[in-house]
Order: sequence, then structure tokens, then C-alpha cells
Amino acid sequence: MAARRATRQISVGGVKIGGRNNPVVVQSMTKSDTRDVARTVAEIKGAEAEGCEIIRSAVPDMAAADALVEIKRQISIPLIADIHFHHELALASIKNGVDGLRLNPGNIRDADKVREVVRAAQRARISIRIGVNFGSLPPVGKIGASGGRRVVDGVNELPTIAEAMLSGRPDAYTVVDHMVATALWEISILEALDFDDIKISLKAFDVPTTVESYRRLATLVPYPFHLGITESGTVRTGSIRSAVGLGVLLYEGIGDTIRVSLAGDCREEVKTGFEILKSLNLRNKGTTLVACPSCGRADIDVLRLTAKVDELLKGRATPIKVAVMGCEVNGPGEAKDADVGIAGGNGRAVIFRKGAKARVVPEAEMLEALMSEVEKAEEALKARA
Amino acid sequence: MAARRATRQISVGGVKIGGRNNPVVVQSMTKSDTRDVARTVAEIKGAEAEGCEIIRSAVPDMAAADALVEIKRQISIPLIADIHFHHELALASIKNGVDGLRLNPGNIRDADKVREVVRAAQRARISIRIGVNFGSLPPVGKIGASGGRRVVDGVNELPTIAEAMLSGRPDAYTVVDHMVATALWEISILEALDFDDIKISLKAFDVPTTVESYRRLATLVPYPFHLGITESGTVRTGSIRSAVGLGVLLYEGIGDTIRVSLAGDCREEVKTGFEILKSLNLRNKGTTLVACPSCGRADIDVLRLTAKVDELLKGRATPIKVAVMGCEVNGPGEAKDADVGIAGGNGRAVIFRKGAKARVVPEAEMLEALMSEVEKAEEALKARA
Repeated sequence: MAARRATRQISVGGVKIGGRNNPVVVQSMTKSDTRDVARTVAEIKGAEAEGCEIIRSAVPDMAAADALVEIKRQISIPLIADIHFHHELALASIKNGVDGLRLNPGNIRDADKVREVVRAAQRARISIRIGVNFGSLPPVGKIGASGGRRVVDGVNELPTIAEAMLSGRPDAYTVVDHMVATALWEISILEALDFDDIKISLKAFDVPTTVESYRRLATLVPYPFHLGITESGTVRTGSIRSAVGLGVLLYEGIGDTIRVSLAGDCREEVKTGFEILKSLNLRNKGTTLVACPSCGRADIDVLRLTAKVDELLKGRATPIKVAVMGCEVNGPGEAKDADVGIAGGNGRAVIFRKGAKARVVPEAEMLEALMSEVEKAEEALKARA
Repeated sequence: MAARRATRQISVGGVKIGGRNNPVVVQSMTKSDTRDVARTVAEIKGAEAEGCEIIRSAVPDMAAADALVEIKRQISIPLIADIHFHHELALASIKNGVDGLRLNPGNIRDADKVREVVRAAQRARISIRIGVNFGSLPPVGKIGASGGRRVVDGVNELPTIAEAMLSGRPDAYTVVDHMVATALWEISILEALDFDDIKISLKAFDVPTTVESYRRLATLVPYPFHLGITESGTVRTGSIRSAVGLGVLLYEGIGDTIRVSLAGDCREEVKTGFEILKSLNLRNKGTTLVACPSCGRADIDVLRLTAKVDELLKGRATPIKVAVMGCEVNGPGEAKDADVGIAGGNGRAVIFRKGAKARVVPEAEMLEALMSEVEKAEEALKARA
């Protein structure tokens, strides 16, 4: 697995993003009407309980911007205002205490208005995410003027839009080129105002488009990246699509914060986010369940046992690895790797602790015995910490 | 995204695996007692209905081997017998008509018995998967004799176990080294018998261990790979872990067939498998749902609408892309990319067909209108095919 890409460190409230040693941060976005403070706060508290580290809310009008004061007062994690088109909503959100903005300067149009927002962000010491989305890319002509060319530190690798269009091979200008050129154009607007407290996202529904866009931009700018696959689907399918896309990038060391966009509860977005990071050992949160998929070799109902253990382990915060095995072939080996393992069969179960047989108990007592060993392992881990 | 790794083509029943142009094949494994023919067949039929292309069943004893005759008679997809330790079970499975074996020659021990199985496989023209699993790796000493060294075509890159252990830096011999060395050792046993109708898996629960093992072996042998993350977890967490691990490898062009190991129903394994492949455009099966995650900007209940659309689209086989959007920002853009899209708000909904506004309908009629456009899109696709 590749080392993390070295990026500039920025902050959103107290949460550091980027740099080499900060963890990859999990964030989410509220789905209720931001003007409905009670529902929005309830959503945020739910996400917080799952470990969400930054939350974002849409600010489509002034009433929503006004609601941020009270929302901010009632929550503990940093709040980002998601703004489109209207600079006065950005100014109001900053005044009302948000910890960050998600805003594409290119869609505010008027240079004076952009300058006003950037100056206010500088005074408030808050960062801005530029969020390029496949679904809302500007027309090629619009970014043609700045050319999407060169932005930082003499980097000058991407052809200008004009060059690509005039090369006689307009087909050579791909969606990925346009995603990256759009990001460079948006970045150039902020940099021209001496603002570089920036993070970037480049989201598409198509995974290869997303991956290639991030890969390319990673070679061109030093800013931290917010990763996401846009409109990825339901909790079931969107989690899989997001895991593939974010997984490929994170494995290459690309990505400083992630948001999994699911047509479902914020809590599910956060859970999936952490599962993705845990699978690459990038975060360590709560129990990790190693679960035998069962087969015709098992002589215990492993699937039912696993479901029960999964239920019992829910919400436990200590990062230990628990293995539920039904198999003489892989059971002992996998149990050896786990902090606590159970391998059942023939009316009894063996409980392992780090590979050592801890107890052999009758099947009827195995759940209780397992959980008692889980608690001991948790105590041991806490004592070491 | 990388081009598919060129591998030797093998067959399991009528299903071709490997080569450059065969699709990545989705397989699963039954969880019921193989001797219970009715339950095992029911499981297989369920998996088949989800698109499962190859099924595997454990054969832990002779009664299970005997059951294969009747199971085989009742199913339509190729059947692989999963064997450990006992060569007579492999021989019986071949006699009873299986289309492939999963068997590690190294754990059969006796060379004559291995030869007997290999000759029977050759006569029956069936392939063998060597399945190396982290949970059941042989002791280092056991494969030390053959050295895990060189196997195919003069490749000689991996140090022998002995060299690594004697180098004074035994720590330099990693789990990945041992996974790969074990695979090479197992392969060498079959190759010594002139058998190369082989595919390989190298599964661990740890994603980086799995990825690095496959990556390394990909440079050393020409055989197709069966990908999997072992004991990856419940349907929820295991799908995410598997998507990350398999996604990274498939993005690099590595992988010819996949099995997602979940502590849940076979059908879930197959669904997750196809979702992983669809997210990388490697397979094209059924509807793909682009789903807005909703935010405070939506003035329609997008999540409820998405859940309803998801339900209505279930089981539809035609590969079309349907977008459910609630947002003026990304809605029209994403709908443009979809075969059919719906973007709702303010009591009405716009239905798109490939970016063109097809209809504007009152909110009460939007589901019916959407599904009627979905059916038209399916017809159009079928007509083109």
C-alpha cells in the first residue's frame, strides 16, 4: 500500500485535514431542511454518535443561513456550509459561525463578490472546499478564458481547453480532462486572491472517471483531497460503489477526508466511511468482525451465531478484532490473528485469545463465554493505552 | 484503469475464465450441509436467479460426495467440489460429475494420491483451483524443501524460504512472502505432474496482505486468479471490505473470477459481486441506480422516492441507468448521463430520457411516469441488441 500523498494541512474547526500524519477524516452531510433546526441537529447528533467528524449542511436561502447559529450552538463537531451561486449566503454563513465553506467560486461569477467571500473567510480563518461534480461541470467555453492552465508552483502540464479544442482532436479532451481543468480553474480564482486554505473534490458517479480525475490532480496541486463518489446509490449498492472508488484511491495514498454519499441516513454514510478506512487499516474504530461465511463443512449454525455476535458487539468503541469461525480448516488460523475468536462445532465451542485456547464451553454457553473474553480483551487494551 | 492482465484461459463446465476477453465471472459457495440435497439445490437456484455463474460446495465426507450426483442433475451452473485433505473425496467428486475442484495438493501429502487425483482431473478435463488462505498456511518448514522457488518459465524471483530464514533477517520474510511462496509450492506440485489447468486464490482478511499477495503472484505465473477477501464479515461490513480489496485489484486489471465471502445468504454474495464489477464497468447487469443522497436543498423527499424506485427496479434484467435526483445543482447533469432520470421538486417532477426532457408530471404521477419511461428505455435497448 502506498504512503499517504504529502498534502498541505488545513483545518475545519478543530479537525486537521491533510499533512502526512493526520488521520483520514470521515464526514457526512445532513439531509433534512436546514431551516428545521431540531431535525437537522437530531441528524447531526446521530452522525456524531457513529463517529462523524465533520458535518455539512446545504444553505439554499437566508433562512437556512440564519438557522446555522442555533445548529452550531447545539452540536460539537465542525459545521460546513454548502453554498451554490449566492455569495450573500456564504457571507451570512461565515458571520453565523460555520467552520468551513463548500463553494465553487466559478459559479458566483462576479469577481468582487468572490473577493468579498474570500476576505471574510480569511478573517474568520476558515477553509474552503472546491467541489467539482460531473453533474454540474461548467461548459467548456466558460473555463476556456483562464484556460484551466497552470496554477501552482510552475506546474503546467494540462493543455488549455483552447489547445485541446483547437488541436483538431476535440475528442481527445475527455471528461477527466474537463473535471481536472475545472478544478484548476476554480483553484486559480482563489489563488489569485492569495487564498490557499483549500481542499478539493472531483466527484462523479462513474468510478474510473473519479479515480483518474483525482489521480491526475494529485500530480498538479498540493492541496488535500476530499474523496467521494457522487450519488453512489442506496445504502447497499452505494456503499459498494463508494468502497471500490475510495478504496482504489486510498490504497494509492490519495485522500485526506471522505464522504460517502448514500440515499440513506447520515449514520449509514459514516458507518460505511469507517468500514472503508478500517479495511485498509487507516482508522481503527470499534470491533472488527472476522466472520466465516460458512459452508457445508460447518457443524454449527455459523451465520446465526455471527448475526448474534454482530448484534452484541454493536456500539462497542474499543478497537478489537473478533473472529467467529465454524471451520476446522481456517478457524484456528484466523482465530490466532484475532484478539478473541470462537470456533464451534459438535455441541461445544473453543474460545481463543490471540491464538491461545482460553476456554472450551458447551454450545449453550458460548455467547456468554465469548462476550466475557471480549470484555477482558477490551480491558487489556485499555490498560495498555 | 489498467487493461486486464493476460492470463491463460481455463474452463469450469461451460464457463471460460481468464484470457483477455472473457468477462470476470461471479461465483459463490453453498452454506448448507451438502448432504442435504434439497436445501443445497434451493440455495444454488437462489444464487442462479441472482446471476451466479459458478457454484462451489464443500465435500467433507463421502456422503457429501455422493450427494453431488443429484445436486448436479438439478442445477444449471457449473459445480465445484471444495476438498481438503482427502484424495478419495476428490476422486469421488470427479466421478460424480463436478466441473472443477478446489484443492490444495500440499495438504493431501502423499504424492501417489495427488497423482491419482490429477490424472482423474485430466481425464475428466476439469480444472483445479489452488486456494491459499491466510488462516491455513502451512508451516514455513513444510514448504522449505521445495523452497517455494521457481515454478514457471524460468521465473525465479522469490527467495527460497531457506534463504530468507537463513539471511539473518527472518523478519524480512513477510506474510505476503509466505502466501506467495505457498502458492508457488502448490503450483509446482501440479506442474510437476504436467497439470496446468489451474486458477489460484490468495485470500486473507487483511486487505493489503491480500492485494500485495495477488500483485506479486501476478508477476510470477500466467494462471488466472480467483479473487476474494476471506471471512470478510456480515453482508454490510463484508461487502465493503470485499469491495475495497477486490476493487483495488480489478482496477489494476488483476482478477478473472470473484467470490465475495459473506456471513449471509449466497444471493447477497452474488449481488455484491456484480455491484463491484458494475462499479468498474466490468459487467453490465440489471438496472444501475444513480441516487441523490439528498440534502437541505431538496424540496421533495428524495430518500423515500429512491427507496420506492429501488423496489420497483428490483429484478429487472436490462442494463439501464436510472437517476433519481432532488437537486437543481447536479440533477439535470446527472440525469443527462442516465438512460432515464427523474428530478423532482415543488409538487412536480421532470422525467428525462438521455438528457432530453421527456415529460413534466405532477408529483402524484411521477412514479408511474418514471416506470413507463424505464420500460420504453428497456424496449429501446432490446431493439438495438
